[in-house]
Amino acid sequence: MDEPALRALVDGIVAGDIDPDEAVGRLRRLPFADLGFARVDHHRLLRTRLPEAVYGPGKTPAQCAALVSELLAGEGGPVLLTRADEAQVDAVLTAHPGGVVTGDRHRLVAWRPSPPAPGAVVVVSAGTADLPVAEECAAALAALGHPPARLTDVGVAGLHRLLAEGPAVVAADAVVVVAGMEGALASVVGGLTAAPVVAVPTSVGYGAALEGITALLAMLSSCAAGITVVGIDNGYGAACAVSRLLSPLGASRG
Amino acid sequence: MDEPALRALVDGIVAGDIDPDEAVGRLRRLPFADLGFARVDHHRLLRTRLPEAVYGPGKTPAQCAALVSELLAGEGGPVLLTRADEAQVDAVLTAHPGGVVTGDRHRLVAWRPSPPAPGAVVVVSAGTADLPVAEECAAALAALGHPPARLTDVGVAGLHRLLAEGPAVVAADAVVVVAGMEGALASVVGGLTAAPVVAVPTSVGYGAALEGITALLAMLSSCAAGITVVGIDNGYGAACAVSRLLSPLGASRG
Amino acid sequence: MDEPALRALVDGIVAGDIDPDEAVGRLRRLPFADLGFARVDHHRLLRTRLPEAVYGPGKTPAQCAALVSELLAGEGGPVLLTRADEAQVDAVLTAHPGGVVTGDRHRLVAWRPSPPAPGAVVVVSAGTADLPVAEECAAALAALGHPPARLTDVGVAGLHRLLAEGPAVVAADAVVVVAGMEGALASVVGGLTAAPVVAVPTSVGYGAALEGITALLAMLSSCAAGITVVGIDNGYGAACAVSRLLSPLGASRG
Amino acid sequence: MDEPALRALVDGIVAGDIDPDEAVGRLRRLPFADLGFARVDHHRLLRTRLPEAVYGPGKTPAQCAALVSELLAGEGGPVLLTRADEAQVDAVLTAHPGGVVTGDRHRLVAWRPSPPAPGAVVVVSAGTADLPVAEECAAALAALGHPPARLTDVGVAGLHRLLAEGPAVVAADAVVVVAGMEGALASVVGGLTAAPVVAVPTSVGYGAALEGITALLAMLSSCAAGITVVGIDNGYGAACAVSRLLSPLGASRG
Amino acid sequence: MDEPALRALVDGIVAGDIDPDEAVGRLRRLPFADLGFARVDHHRLLRTRLPEAVYGPGKTPAQCAALVSELLAGEGGPVLLTRADEAQVDAVLTAHPGGVVTGDRHRLVAWRPSPPAPGAVVVVSAGTADLPVAEECAAALAALGHPPARLTDVGVAGLHRLLAEGPAVVAADAVVVVAGMEGALASVVGGLTAAPVVAVPTSVGYGAALEGITALLAMLSSCAAGITVVGIDNGYGAACAVSRLLSPLGASRG
Amino acid sequence: MDEPALRALVDGIVAGDIDPDEAVGRLRRLPFADLGFARVDHHRLLRTRLPEAVYGPGKTPAQCAALVSELLAGEGGPVLLTRADEAQVDAVLTAHPGGVVTGDRHRLVAWRPSPPAPGAVVVVSAGTADLPVAEECAAALAALGHPPARLTDVGVAGLHRLLAEGPAVVAADAVVVVAGMEGALASVVGGLTAAPVVAVPTSVGYGAALEGITALLAMLSSCAAGITVVGIDNGYGAACAVSRLLSPLGASRG
Amino acid sequence: MDEPALRALVDGIVAGDIDPDEAVGRLRRLPFADLGFARVDHHRLLRTRLPEAVYGPGKTPAQCAALVSELLAGEGGPVLLTRADEAQVDAVLTAHPGGVVTGDRHRLVAWRPSPPAPGAVVVVSAGTADLPVAEECAAALAALGHPPARLTDVGVAGLHRLLAEGPAVVAADAVVVVAGMEGALASVVGGLTAAPVVAVPTSVGYGAALEGITALLAMLSSCAAGITVVGIDNGYGAACAVSRLLSPLGASRG
Amino acid sequence: MDEPALRALVDGIVAGDIDPDEAVGRLRRLPFADLGFARVDHHRLLRTRLPEAVYGPGKTPAQCAALVSELLAGEGGPVLLTRADEAQVDAVLTAHPGGVVTGDRHRLVAWRPSPPAPGAVVVVSAGTADLPVAEECAAALAALGHPPARLTDVGVAGLHRLLAEGPAVVAADAVVVVAGMEGALASVVGGLTAAPVVAVPTSVGYGAALEGITALLAMLSSCAAGITVVGIDNGYGAACAVSRLLSPLGASRG
Repeated sequence: MDEPALRALVDGIVAGDIDPDEAVGRLRRLPFADLGFARVDHHRLLRTRLPEAVYGPGKTPAQCAALVSELLAGEGGPVLLTRADEAQVDAVLTAHPGGVVTGDRHRLVAWRPSPPAPGAVVVVSAGTADLPVAEECAAALAALGHPPARLTDVGVAGLHRLLAEGPAVVAADAVVVVAGMEGALASVVGGLTAAPVVAVPTSVGYGAALEGITALLAMLSSCAAGITVVGIDNGYGAACAVSRLLSPLGASRG
Repeated sequence: MDEPALRALVDGIVAGDIDPDEAVGRLRRLPFADLGFARVDHHRLLRTRLPEAVYGPGKTPAQCAALVSELLAGEGGPVLLTRADEAQVDAVLTAHPGGVVTGDRHRLVAWRPSPPAPGAVVVVSAGTADLPVAEECAAALAALGHPPARLTDVGVAGLHRLLAEGPAVVAADAVVVVAGMEGALASVVGGLTAAPVVAVPTSVGYGAALEGITALLAMLSSCAAGITVVGIDNGYGAACAVSRLLSPLGASRG
Repeated sequence: MDEPALRALVDGIVAGDIDPDEAVGRLRRLPFADLGFARVDHHRLLRTRLPEAVYGPGKTPAQCAALVSELLAGEGGPVLLTRADEAQVDAVLTAHPGGVVTGDRHRLVAWRPSPPAPGAVVVVSAGTADLPVAEECAAALAALGHPPARLTDVGVAGLHRLLAEGPAVVAADAVVVVAGMEGALASVVGGLTAAPVVAVPTSVGYGAALEGITALLAMLSSCAAGITVVGIDNGYGAACAVSRLLSPLGASRG
Repeated sequence: MDEPALRALVDGIVAGDIDPDEAVGRLRRLPFADLGFARVDHHRLLRTRLPEAVYGPGKTPAQCAALVSELLAGEGGPVLLTRADEAQVDAVLTAHPGGVVTGDRHRLVAWRPSPPAPGAVVVVSAGTADLPVAEECAAALAALGHPPARLTDVGVAGLHRLLAEGPAVVAADAVVVVAGMEGALASVVGGLTAAPVVAVPTSVGYGAALEGITALLAMLSSCAAGITVVGIDNGYGAACAVSRLLSPLGASRG
Repeated sequence: MDEPALRALVDGIVAGDIDPDEAVGRLRRLPFADLGFARVDHHRLLRTRLPEAVYGPGKTPAQCAALVSELLAGEGGPVLLTRADEAQVDAVLTAHPGGVVTGDRHRLVAWRPSPPAPGAVVVVSAGTADLPVAEECAAALAALGHPPARLTDVGVAGLHRLLAEGPAVVAADAVVVVAGMEGALASVVGGLTAAPVVAVPTSVGYGAALEGITALLAMLSSCAAGITVVGIDNGYGAACAVSRLLSPLGASRG
Repeated sequence: MDEPALRALVDGIVAGDIDPDEAVGRLRRLPFADLGFARVDHHRLLRTRLPEAVYGPGKTPAQCAALVSELLAGEGGPVLLTRADEAQVDAVLTAHPGGVVTGDRHRLVAWRPSPPAPGAVVVVSAGTADLPVAEECAAALAALGHPPARLTDVGVAGLHRLLAEGPAVVAADAVVVVAGMEGALASVVGGLTAAPVVAVPTSVGYGAALEGITALLAMLSSCAAGITVVGIDNGYGAACAVSRLLSPLGASRG
Repeated sequence: MDEPALRALVDGIVAGDIDPDEAVGRLRRLPFADLGFARVDHHRLLRTRLPEAVYGPGKTPAQCAALVSELLAGEGGPVLLTRADEAQVDAVLTAHPGGVVTGDRHRLVAWRPSPPAPGAVVVVSAGTADLPVAEECAAALAALGHPPARLTDVGVAGLHRLLAEGPAVVAADAVVVVAGMEGALASVVGGLTAAPVVAVPTSVGYGAALEGITALLAMLSSCAAGITVVGIDNGYGAACAVSRLLSPLGASRG
Repeated sequence: MDEPALRALVDGIVAGDIDPDEAVGRLRRLPFADLGFARVDHHRLLRTRLPEAVYGPGKTPAQCAALVSELLAGEGGPVLLTRADEAQVDAVLTAHPGGVVTGDRHRLVAWRPSPPAPGAVVVVSAGTADLPVAEECAAALAALGHPPARLTDVGVAGLHRLLAEGPAVVAADAVVVVAGMEGALASVVGGLTAAPVVAVPTSVGYGAALEGITALLAMLSSCAAGITVVGIDNGYGAACAVSRLLSPLGASRG
């Protein structure tokens, strides 16, 4: 309930069009749907311009399908199911056949994708093993209206591979860097471009890579100023961060 | 050395204006100034639109002054000295009196600030003890051309303080959230606004706050999608991240 | 053996009703049953008003059944088997068919539940993935005589979902908050209500959520004063904590 | 603004006694005082029955004095300054001489203490080095209306010292256990009493005590069910937790 | 090669009975058997009075059998295979049928056990889930000549269970305490007895128990002086520690 | 109150020599002295054959002196003050001039030392920086009746220094190994001797030595079986552990 | 593109043999092959004298085969696939039958091994469980032209096993030490030889061995100067490190 | 005592030139000097070609001087005192004026430096704050006979600064990389050169840099194969590692 709606409500009370009891009730009612096991936040798209996505792990296929149904019943915006297992994918596609499945290890299903918006996004990843996270990010970006270019396998041990693609990185409006192990790629990219850089540490590596903690700490300690970081393996979160910063904001940003 | 310069160089070789030996040399020469103890990266502003700042700790006052001199001798852009102690401040202001000092615990000195650019930035901080970090961030933002509005002491234990200022947060083009202890403010702000949110964990708190590790982990694990995080107490880094995302899209990046 | 019993024993010795050797023996004998692999603490209910529960993991189905039998042979109070696997559930229900099974991932079996006692308890949980822990807590609360109301999926990324249910939280005599990821819900609830708040961090989330450590640390560092915390995923422990604080003040404790 | 106030407001609009513009304003206005560097939450006492306390570290003496002044200007309830250093104590006592100072290492200053309320509280501490935390807890409890009994130096290496005081622990309405090192006292107390037990790990010990982390983890992993834990050295938080649970059940909560 | 052997060698050289080349060789040769994949240390029993045990994990059944064969071919002392899986047990028993298998989760196979030596050992364990570690310890103790008494399920949440068995603990020549979760049992036992106490933290518990780290740290930080600790779940190591301290040392110890 | 005393008490009741009320009282009274800020455990020496030592840090000089007075007023056994600062040493020596001060960084003051008991103890330390911990251990051992031999600066980087002293290590009845950094000395000593080995990790080293955590973990993971470990820098604890294991077997324990 | 190639290019431009556009293009082109999912770095062998190896985990068998094909299509140098699972081995051997498979747990496949180069390498391992890592290291060394001698099962608990082989360690040009648990072997070897020592911590051990973290930290904190360390279980990395230091460097090293 | 000495000894026994008792003694005597508080390892230079250095922290100035005297009394090789404070420097220079002091924060004093040996070493450091560690490394290298070239302030945020110096790095016989924060420089250097790379993580940075742990973990997880790592801030250790690998292959080692 935003400012104009609040004013309309108060005006309605003054005019006698709205009963006081109802007014109290509406002032307390907020726009979500209670499914019993979950409260679907239809308001989120309005508030944050990001839809509420369904995170698969820990939910039954039936719960996934019910949540997707509820979200599709709402207006506008993409509907996303992330990290879905096979049974969840089957259940949601049976109920809503139009979903597009992407990725292999981190399956993402998308319905009603946003039309492409302006802004060049590049998803840079360090090694082949980082691909599942990069793919989740790219799929989420596409669904949110920002289909990215991809730069794959450009880890810093062979720096020329990245430098060869420098112009794409320099020209981007936003860059996502996906890297495990020591995560040094984020620092190098951050030093090459003026664009916002969102770094995604991955759990790739073994031993001292500590399931992604090492890459996470390294990215947070980067000597390249102005890099920001999301959680380990959180390709979806990076996509949302990019969406926040690329969304048109009218005069002040356009 | 950017693309046009490279082409000019090659054209110069073709035209015989540039000697081959010199060409090889220039292809290898890169734009930094070697002060012996440091290599000042004059190129950084061009590459990343962020100037190279001088980080005070571990440097002698004389080194700070020399670095500031070198940076001021370069063209354009603000010059910043961060986390300066008193002796460093004295030394740099003696050499270059025009610097403006901000902050108390995290002193920042700025010369040649950028003119204000479009884009509304809000720096939200959770408690009074988070102020030094928030102030470093605000001072750096101002020097970079993005003087922010401030929302102070709006921690989630008294949620209404933040909700009362909701419109400022909703209308912002970028929000920086500075919080220690459990860092929950970042999640709450992230759920209220569509703007990019850069979270800065602080080392405020004791015991289980683990010098900021707890706030850091909490912000990275936020249930509000699309929040990004910088290092603990890194107000300067958050300012740089905001600067990256507010720079105008279009020609300059294309 | 409490104070009156001790006096009775001493009186018995004085009166010659109790043989000195027997007195020495009884002064050393304490009320537990030794099953060989376990010592069942029949006294615990008297001492702590909480029954000794059987924790399933690491026990054979036969051991579970034997322990349940021993506890049911004692007087009064509910008998609980927690975190039971399927084979354990089969074994105990075969031996003692009256048990009621709750939960799916964290199965709890209860016999002889306590009658409902006064006091309104609310179990608030942040996301759907937190449900198994919330359900274990609710089932244990019910068995202990405090069947709770439930508030599900009210994470802070959509704050209005919680605010809409504010009165229930405000009116409660005790609130359990179950949340993983960054655990911010505990701080927000703590700022809204005067009731005791017991926070249960869950292992929900991945990467920087560190299997619940992040939520745990965040809840311990909460800026909302007077929140207390139990172990990760310890829904049963939270139920016991609530049971302790809701027991009537006065005679029974005096 | 609680339910009756909201209804009064709406009734006022209906009756024409309240101007619509004012109504919108008041619906947005929330009860806190903005001091520039801080927003004093006058509403907190109403919401949580706990006053907003001033946490000293990181604040100037002048800020402490201003905050205390603002809180004393509000109605009812104790006013507390915690972890104050000497300069802060001087400043606040000069401005408001009535404050009572307690403790040596963790100084607490209290004005307008609550009258003693029913309910027997015992603060149990393990060793002499745990006293500063126990004293902060006891002083805060006294200010909140729950002056506690004290049991000092009853660590488990000499169990008989605690067992000798068993009745006091058994008869309490709430027990706070303050212990560093391995924190085993919490488990032992938890097994002896039916009262709510709030455990406070302290940073007492060296080496493997890890500045209180060991005691914290041990208390969270206690085999005694229903113990709850607050942050390391957080005597004030434990006092607040006890205050929450001892407030009278009934009308005010019902 | 001990002192007398060295002297005999030198005497042999002097007497011309031993060729100089051979002398050099023997001075370099040391008493182990090289099986290619392993060097069996036949000397260890002499040096440390503890036999070299075969640790099963990571070895093939054939390697286990070969190592056991080699050890049985040596003189004196028990031969032990620890943490054996089923295939390993089959292989070694086929080759050497006399081995006695103990334990279920941590299988130990023993051949040629030492005859019982003087000294009363008690293995105290906190909960049923700690039994596998306690059993490995007891089986190893028995093989090393110190068959222990057992005290099972005497965790500190029901202190009277331990106190009832106090005399056994007080009278012991060595006590092993096996406990997971918060490991408080070690401190309590350490405060009750003058005997050496070897504490074995176990990985029992979940969440904040951190796979045994919590119990380990707690035991190391114990307020009961003179407790020593071995690694997590290391029942075998505790048995060896007890064997070291109980072995007859002639006059000075007897 | 031991078994014979309990029997005497019961006999006294039977004989009518002891009043029932008094009997109840004595059954509850336990032998400690309550100084207000501390409860001195006079019983500890009886129970554990180790006196209660006064740990200096966090206590005022006056408290230290009072505690020492109380302990000296008790019967028999040494009285120890550990980790005393200068002011504490002054205070206790003024009150009780007979105390002997040892050590520089970890000052230990001892009164009424035990006469030397049989049993050869060796304290082995790895480097010069480990000396303060080794000295605390040696001083405590001497006070407890076990003055040790010393082996200093025999770290494994120059193995021959240790091997040259092998016979002393082999012949010892107990060995304490004090080492920081990687703590490898404990493993090497453990492989050379049959005696009980108590390892003391020290906080010597920097960076990856993690203030002693590395040495601690390494000692706990030692490949030499039967080594036991005490807390970081806990020389006093190691001395107590040795005292436990050297006390004569037989009547006093039986 | 190395120095001579750059000069040739510039000369070609001067001579008019190379078109300016092409020159710009070639100055930007770098020598890698883009397979879509990966960029094969053919240049690495030139730059670092180490080939780019294919790391198996996270890659499909088809991807492994394609990468191996691409590498074999390049000139010179060995081609390696590390940590391959069975399906990957099948796929690559079907495509390129000449590969030699080594190891069991950490399978390594090598084609086109380098001819043996001068320099004596010894791989020393502590226990049988460390063999898989030692074998990966040895196999990689062999493929890189440095087939090592092997010293197996020479852990420090039986020091004489290592001392017996001292001459081999002393005479080596490089020593790799592979050890888990407390990793003390690295310190002991480092104190015996003047050769470069590369330490490989392994994840062997349980509990406090922390999956290799303990050995890692211990090796980094070694009191033997000049030891260097690679990641946990990283036998391949140690082989590469040895290859770097043994490769002929012309006059100065040869 | 090396092989020839051993043979000479045996020959002496055979020839009757050496008394058997003396032979036994000498076979046991090893070449170190016992100063009481330390055992100076004169043999180390022979065994490892690295002298025993005196590590300042925790030693008195007098101990430092005594150790330096003892080492200077030995034959050949440099004598080093590391991490010396001012008082230690004064004491050793008074006793032995010829020492050369280097560095400011990590003072190193060297006597009798080795003459320069063949082999080009480069010490690369990331930022100005890393200089103290780089300087300790360079000073130790110079004393050991390997005076290095220096590359200062070439962090990856301005990659061109390093690339401009590429040839020096490529041509080196050994490269030391000194970097704090995220330590990415090691990976980039490792990808550019075939030389051995020894990485030194520094404690430079704050917050998530975790006092050097982040750089350490990142370097250990580097995607550039064959990098080795020493402890945090351990410039001296890196110098020793380089010295080991640069010593001439051949006779001296064979």
